[in-house]
Amino acid sequence: MPVTPASSAQPLPGAGQLRQRLLARQQPVIIGVAGDSGSGKTTYTQGIEWLLGNALVSQISLDGYHSEDRATRRKSGRSPLDPDSNRLHEAADHLATLSRGEAALIPVYDHATGRFAESRWHEPTPVILVEGLHTLYPALRPLLDACVYVDTDISIKHDWKAARDTRDRGYDPTEVAEEIARRAAQHDEWIAIQQDAADVILRIQPSRLESLARGRLDLDDPPECQHLEVIVQPRHGDQPALYFPVDLNNMTRESAMPFMLATVPSHFRGRTVNVLHVDGYMPPAALATLEQEICAFAGVEPPSGTASAAADRRPTIRFAQMLVAWPILAHIASLEH
Amino acid sequence: MPVTPASSAQPLPGAGQLRQRLLARQQPVIIGVAGDSGSGKTTYTQGIEWLLGNALVSQISLDGYHSEDRATRRKSGRSPLDPDSNRLHEAADHLATLSRGEAALIPVYDHATGRFAESRWHEPTPVILVEGLHTLYPALRPLLDACVYVDTDISIKHDWKAARDTRDRGYDPTEVAEEIARRAAQHDEWIAIQQDAADVILRIQPSRLESLARGRLDLDDPPECQHLEVIVQPRHGDQPALYFPVDLNNMTRESAMPFMLATVPSHFRGRTVNVLHVDGYMPPAALATLEQEICAFAGVEPPSGTASAAADRRPTIRFAQMLVAWPILAHIASLEH
Repeated sequence: MPVTPASSAQPLPGAGQLRQRLLARQQPVIIGVAGDSGSGKTTYTQGIEWLLGNALVSQISLDGYHSEDRATRRKSGRSPLDPDSNRLHEAADHLATLSRGEAALIPVYDHATGRFAESRWHEPTPVILVEGLHTLYPALRPLLDACVYVDTDISIKHDWKAARDTRDRGYDPTEVAEEIARRAAQHDEWIAIQQDAADVILRIQPSRLESLARGRLDLDDPPECQHLEVIVQPRHGDQPALYFPVDLNNMTRESAMPFMLATVPSHFRGRTVNVLHVDGYMPPAALATLEQEICAFAGVEPPSGTASAAADRRPTIRFAQMLVAWPILAHIASLEH
Repeated sequence: MPVTPASSAQPLPGAGQLRQRLLARQQPVIIGVAGDSGSGKTTYTQGIEWLLGNALVSQISLDGYHSEDRATRRKSGRSPLDPDSNRLHEAADHLATLSRGEAALIPVYDHATGRFAESRWHEPTPVILVEGLHTLYPALRPLLDACVYVDTDISIKHDWKAARDTRDRGYDPTEVAEEIARRAAQHDEWIAIQQDAADVILRIQPSRLESLARGRLDLDDPPECQHLEVIVQPRHGDQPALYFPVDLNNMTRESAMPFMLATVPSHFRGRTVNVLHVDGYMPPAALATLEQEICAFAGVEPPSGTASAAADRRPTIRFAQMLVAWPILAHIASLEH
């Protein structure tokens, strides 16, 4: 039972049919996504692709612009986190080519082998997601229409990176752990500074639901849930509402699942920001309503096969994807035609 | 713009027209409210009266059953928090009289003078709220249809009690502070134990929004907001939903007000409970929707003069009043005719 009919959401001023407007644009919209290796950049920006559809969105990884492959790095001792170990100006040239609506030959780094693979021609799509360690660096920023930074807590990053590197990239688990420890300081110096350039910052941290329990948190299975923060620069003017229906009667139910939602205006690194907090389990019905709202709001039609596609995704991830996609879509809608 | 039309809420099974059902009952519904002096017992149970209307609800204070007046207490050194300093069995007799539908002569303690005033005849109303320090003690519990415990953090209680006792009860501020310190241990021994008998526990604590800020909480004026917890025993069976529409677009707004909402199932003092947390500023429009929902849900008509009555109450208090009233009304609706 959707609480808010999709038709009740007012389209953003100038949003209209976002898909049609994107197709009509001469230049692609380029969205930069920065964050450490294993921070979940790909996972959390998939909502944009899901909402707009595969045909309109393509992805580029900046890892192809590393100056050295794995074997060379082991000899030189240089880190790929060092911006000077990356050919960012070449990346900027390629993004400039794409932004003129022309195809670019993009270098490819193969994480499975640790070597460069054959470069690939990339045809511009209406929306291009550019992911990498240094995507929001000054060399690239003028070419980006929107900037996202993904910051994953080291304990979660460790698990993710270890699982992925061991499974897909042929690393030894101990080697991965050492690598992560060594990287922490480099991360602060070279990667974390990019959040000052971000329109949207996503933080993924361990769940803090335990601190909200009275006595002991009551869960049969340890939850696979995380504490998410979405930090955005607030916008002037009155925005139409985007309702997420929280069922308060959950509190009288025996089968209640833990859940937390908060918005807190803050002063963060010299900026005025709003922080949205989410923790626990998202009710799938409320999520479906929210997705309908976002579609109606930004003037895109709900993706076909919504039900099955949604079922594939964990509710918390799905919610985070919507929370990241929403301000980005709103930003795209506000761009000049 | 109400998001959820009131008509969408399904009435509770057996709720029907709660007011009519209460008027038709032979026996009044007696709701016990326990908690320390200055904990806000009166404030937080007013939602029940507001929803059902003045005509159906009356209040009794158990302070009239203190064994000693203030002057006598100063000589004897006995505390009114000691259950043995109260005539609880006399109170039980009076509640039994009222529960048979007969009037009872209720003793009255005048906090302004510290003396007993003239007893008053109390005619039974369909709902009777009984407030006091020992309302949930074993002598009274069999006479109660629902049990509420209000627990206010000492820092907030101090402010409230000091303001009220100095203003209305003729105490000196220093005297009040000493009194509170002395009472803390007695509170744990004699008052706090009653929460084990409560169907609903309300905790009022200082705001914790600061801990959710990134950097520094951005508020021009220090907020008059508190962290509220409503602890309830969950019920079996599937309950219809009670939606509170949270506006996620608040996060993109410059004028966003801080806000937090959470539900966490816990094991608390040997019981399985659900804890609802609320902190920050409640949007009045969302509150109005919630109030409509609760009215539709429990089968009562929205109170007349809703708008002006609502405007008189601070949104956070108003929300807390609804959160306390809701499980109590649901409980009343489930009682045998």
